[in-house]
Amino acid sequence: MDIMQVEDSLVCTRRVPGLASVSLRVLRSASGSRAVAVDTVGARPGNWVFTISGSAARLAVGKEILTDLSIAGIIDRWEEDSRGESG
Amino acid sequence: MDIMQVEDSLVCTRRVPGLASVSLRVLRSASGSRAVAVDTVGARPGNWVFTISGSAARLAVGKEILTDLSIAGIIDRWEEDSRGESG
Amino acid sequence: MDIMQVEDSLVCTRRVPGLASVSLRVLRSASGSRAVAVDTVGARPGNWVFTISGSAARLAVGKEILTDLSIAGIIDRWEEDSRGESG
Amino acid sequence: MDIMQVEDSLVCTRRVPGLASVSLRVLRSASGSRAVAVDTVGARPGNWVFTISGSAARLAVGKEILTDLSIAGIIDRWEEDSRGESG
Amino acid sequence: MDIMQVEDSLVCTRRVPGLASVSLRVLRSASGSRAVAVDTVGARPGNWVFTISGSAARLAVGKEILTDLSIAGIIDRWEEDSRGESG
Repeated sequence: MDIMQVEDSLVCTRRVPGLASVSLRVLRSASGSRAVAVDTVGARPGNWVFTISGSAARLAVGKEILTDLSIAGIIDRWEEDSRGESG
Repeated sequence: MDIMQVEDSLVCTRRVPGLASVSLRVLRSASGSRAVAVDTVGARPGNWVFTISGSAARLAVGKEILTDLSIAGIIDRWEEDSRGESG
Repeated sequence: MDIMQVEDSLVCTRRVPGLASVSLRVLRSASGSRAVAVDTVGARPGNWVFTISGSAARLAVGKEILTDLSIAGIIDRWEEDSRGESG
Repeated sequence: MDIMQVEDSLVCTRRVPGLASVSLRVLRSASGSRAVAVDTVGARPGNWVFTISGSAARLAVGKEILTDLSIAGIIDRWEEDSRGESG
Repeated sequence: MDIMQVEDSLVCTRRVPGLASVSLRVLRSASGSRAVAVDTVGARPGNWVFTISGSAARLAVGKEILTDLSIAGIIDRWEEDSRGESG
């Protein structure tokens, strides 16, 4: 599972049926790369979250939702800066 | 799920049976790496899309299609440049 | 499976149901990148561990736990420094 | 799915039973990293191919073949050089 | 599947039950990163091997073994140096 920060919501009108009605968030890792995750916990921009990938991502938010990345939880306290470089 | 830009179609006459009649797109990530995805939403060159990988990629476009990457949706509005470096 | 060092516990009050009551550890790889894993072996900060990813991660700690990374064991003796650069 | 170039065959006498009688190819990505894939389409050194990974790789070449990477098709025309840097 | 060189055995007394009695090897890729794999073919330090990841890794060595990486075979002849830089 990875640690990422919520950057924004993803607005995407045309989608495959398996993702029709889910909330999508754009996340940013410590190294600056971006990913899109399904959010069922109500994460807000700026929150640090940890994410589940693979088939567990699907099971975590409902088997019928066809995601490969889901927000698993909001981290209570995370100070990226004080931890120095991370990848 | 990842954010990528459609570059081109992939012309490939000789394929395994599980991908015989699907539309394939060459995608390019923000970091410049390329990948091939099945397209069922009608993405065009230049569109920014987000993609599903793994077994969810298969379920999203039809279980009998043997892909590990599918276009999940076309992003309404994406400005890569204004977001600076991303990986 | 990867070799990582336990850095800390992860405090995370709001989680998806599938990870409600498990111990989460923040791990750090030799290259400095971080990941979050479920711990069922009782690893402590400073321990070098090896981790299982994917669906095996789930099976290793109990199929109902929705993780994609689990600590598989504590390495008896690991000297990262004497091995030079690793990624 | 990824785009790679066939470099060579892989000669490997001692194998696990699940890969006993398949053709293995060494592939090279645009960034220079190598991988080994099962080939059922008859790709030759120099061919540019695209590959399927994960469980779809297995389904594409026969469920009993224990691969995580299979050649999915031979690309009709690919000019890596004219596309500049890719990863 | 990836090409790696066997570096050492991994001594690890405390493990999850799903890996209780298997041989574990530390492998090193051409780029210098390390991974841990289950070995059922009897690879020795210095051998170049190719590895299977994901669910196929589990099927290759016995479904009850909870690995995400298994040695698939020992390569008859591999000269990394003569192949130049690889990742």
